Amino acid sequence: MLKPSRQAYVPFVSVENMMRLVLHIGIEKMMVDLVTEIEADFKRWPLFDKTPRVASHSDIGVIELMPTSDGQTYGFKYVNGHPSNTKQGLQTVTAFGLLADVATGYPLMLSEMTILTALRTAATSAMAAKWLAPRDSKVMAMIGNGAQAEFQALAMKAVCGIEEVRLYDIDPAATAKCVRNLEGRGLNVVPCKTAEEAMQGAQIITTCTADKQYATILTDNMIGSGVHINAVGGDCPGKTELHKDILLRSDVFVEYPEQTRIEGEIQQMPADFPVTELWQVIAGQAEGRRDARQITLFDSVGFAIEDFSALRYVHSRLKDSGRYQDLDMIADPDEPRDLFGMVLRAQQSEVASPTKPASATAV
Amino acid sequence: MLKPSRQAYVPFVSVENMMRLVLHIGIEKMMVDLVTEIEADFKRWPLFDKTPRVASHSDIGVIELMPTSDGQTYGFKYVNGHPSNTKQGLQTVTAFGLLADVATGYPLMLSEMTILTALRTAATSAMAAKWLAPRDSKVMAMIGNGAQAEFQALAMKAVCGIEEVRLYDIDPAATAKCVRNLEGRGLNVVPCKTAEEAMQGAQIITTCTADKQYATILTDNMIGSGVHINAVGGDCPGKTELHKDILLRSDVFVEYPEQTRIEGEIQQMPADFPVTELWQVIAGQAEGRRDARQITLFDSVGFAIEDFSALRYVHSRLKDSGRYQDLDMIADPDEPRDLFGMVLRAQQSEVASPTKPASATAV
Repeated sequence: MLKPSRQAYVPFVSVENMMRLVLHIGIEKMMVDLVTEIEADFKRWPLFDKTPRVASHSDIGVIELMPTSDGQTYGFKYVNGHPSNTKQGLQTVTAFGLLADVATGYPLMLSEMTILTALRTAATSAMAAKWLAPRDSKVMAMIGNGAQAEFQALAMKAVCGIEEVRLYDIDPAATAKCVRNLEGRGLNVVPCKTAEEAMQGAQIITTCTADKQYATILTDNMIGSGVHINAVGGDCPGKTELHKDILLRSDVFVEYPEQTRIEGEIQQMPADFPVTELWQVIAGQAEGRRDARQITLFDSVGFAIEDFSALRYVHSRLKDSGRYQDLDMIADPDEPRDLFGMVLRAQQSEVASPTKPASATAV
Repeated sequence: MLKPSRQAYVPFVSVENMMRLVLHIGIEKMMVDLVTEIEADFKRWPLFDKTPRVASHSDIGVIELMPTSDGQTYGFKYVNGHPSNTKQGLQTVTAFGLLADVATGYPLMLSEMTILTALRTAATSAMAAKWLAPRDSKVMAMIGNGAQAEFQALAMKAVCGIEEVRLYDIDPAATAKCVRNLEGRGLNVVPCKTAEEAMQGAQIITTCTADKQYATILTDNMIGSGVHINAVGGDCPGKTELHKDILLRSDVFVEYPEQTRIEGEIQQMPADFPVTELWQVIAGQAEGRRDARQITLFDSVGFAIEDFSALRYVHSRLKDSGRYQDLDMIADPDEPRDLFGMVLRAQQSEVASPTKPASATAV
């Protein structure tokens, strides 16, 4: 078969290559870089095509497509959410994403995004804390020590200067795993027996639990003044972590109100509950933290622009790192109108070299 | 690095492997098989999740995501439409698609869909003609001899028994290409100098031109009674091929009225213009052709369920054919909550085997 031209190939970042890329750059450096990218995109927020995510729900989970575009580059993420997957040894959330050129519609890169989503979620939390948390925050409480916990801890260290992480989970095995993984990374890691204990002395409180039903991980009497709450786990309809009294005492910051009112902590509140869009704080159009006694709350649900920023960052590092494969994904006939002729020519070469292995396309 | 488990891999059908699969099965056999699959899915039409396609428009094109689900399997197609691409030697339309398991959200197969879309579009046309065209149709006029023409001709031969194809295109080079490609395939191929000449004696008239603006490829005086029109090219807002007087004399059949009223020939008509849904004809719930003098018109725009049927067909042939690669696309930690630990272990193995090539993942 004739070798396809350059434009037939789409660079693909596998799970293995993503891990190698993360380790090559360094997790903390990558968190700092991702915050830079996401901040840059949040500053030009009005420019983006903000299509709502397209969800396909079933009894036991959801599959979503999250597209966006800045007019030059298009990106989308495929992501599922299946809480019962862990019982079968599968991930609750898996994801992959694509960038494409708006001018031609041709894909630019396909990438795993399970790891990348974990990174961008933590980077977005750290970015919000950078703009909203009390000055010189040194201690974070991490309530929920699952798949996202270590990423949150290291992002807060790298971006906000957090020195101590206090861990709590209803499952002590999750906390033990987290302690093990964070060993020797320059953080003072303190496993705790209760959420209250974990919050002692913390300026930043991050909740990231996997409960599917309306849960109350934090009640109002647990929260003192002058803290920043980073609510990561309440991220779909029916899934919340905070008692609504906390929301009433807090100034709430969100990514995209239309989406957060359905999926975030504020789904518990009336439709006109006041929120501030985080991008406006970063762009200098809205106030962040006003005083030391204020409770700020980032009601994080994850937005397509963050995935876009993360994909663009990975794409920008591809050529240097070489950590990708080329996928023969785009049919590229010599003459655009002659798709059929391209298939015919494959036949001629099939006859000419019948022993050529069928799966030798990746280079 | 530890070898990922089976569930980390997603079978990928490259362009090369799709061509080999098509040639292995045979184009005509594949058309017949695809009609069987699409008919089976059209018969259970009400069961499908019929989300509208999600379009991202720019000045010069569109990128769309087309998802659907039958409750067990989820599928989506990425497809672009950029008419000016041909000037740069690029395809107007490229596509790829994915199947996933609704129960877990895990991808089942990633596939090129530029070639597969051409096949399913032709198969859908032939399916419509099978149910709507005059009995014993032997002659088809093919107006527009671009990338879709040969696929339409062979689908009509294989599925409807067409013996003669009469070709017309404003560009004689396109017709010449089509004549060349159809040589020796058991069809009587007649190049024509005008659309009128092409339609002489034809029971089936297929229009598939690439004009972007409202065009009038066929006017009312060109169409006699007792024909079936297969209008493939009018498939997005602002793009039509038939004069509206033809629509007034025809019984119009569509895939999904909500979509066709925006994208199809009937965008020229009022919102209550009567149409019949093709799936209802196939399921025995609506009448197809009533008499020999009737003009039937399939206003084809392409629908997600057809892509779903085609992807499922390819997936069903994977194990036998072996024509796929495994992509390391799903992060699969030994312990689902330990995504971070998986990345750490990659580091240990990175140190242990620093010379391992970075792009050796595909098997």
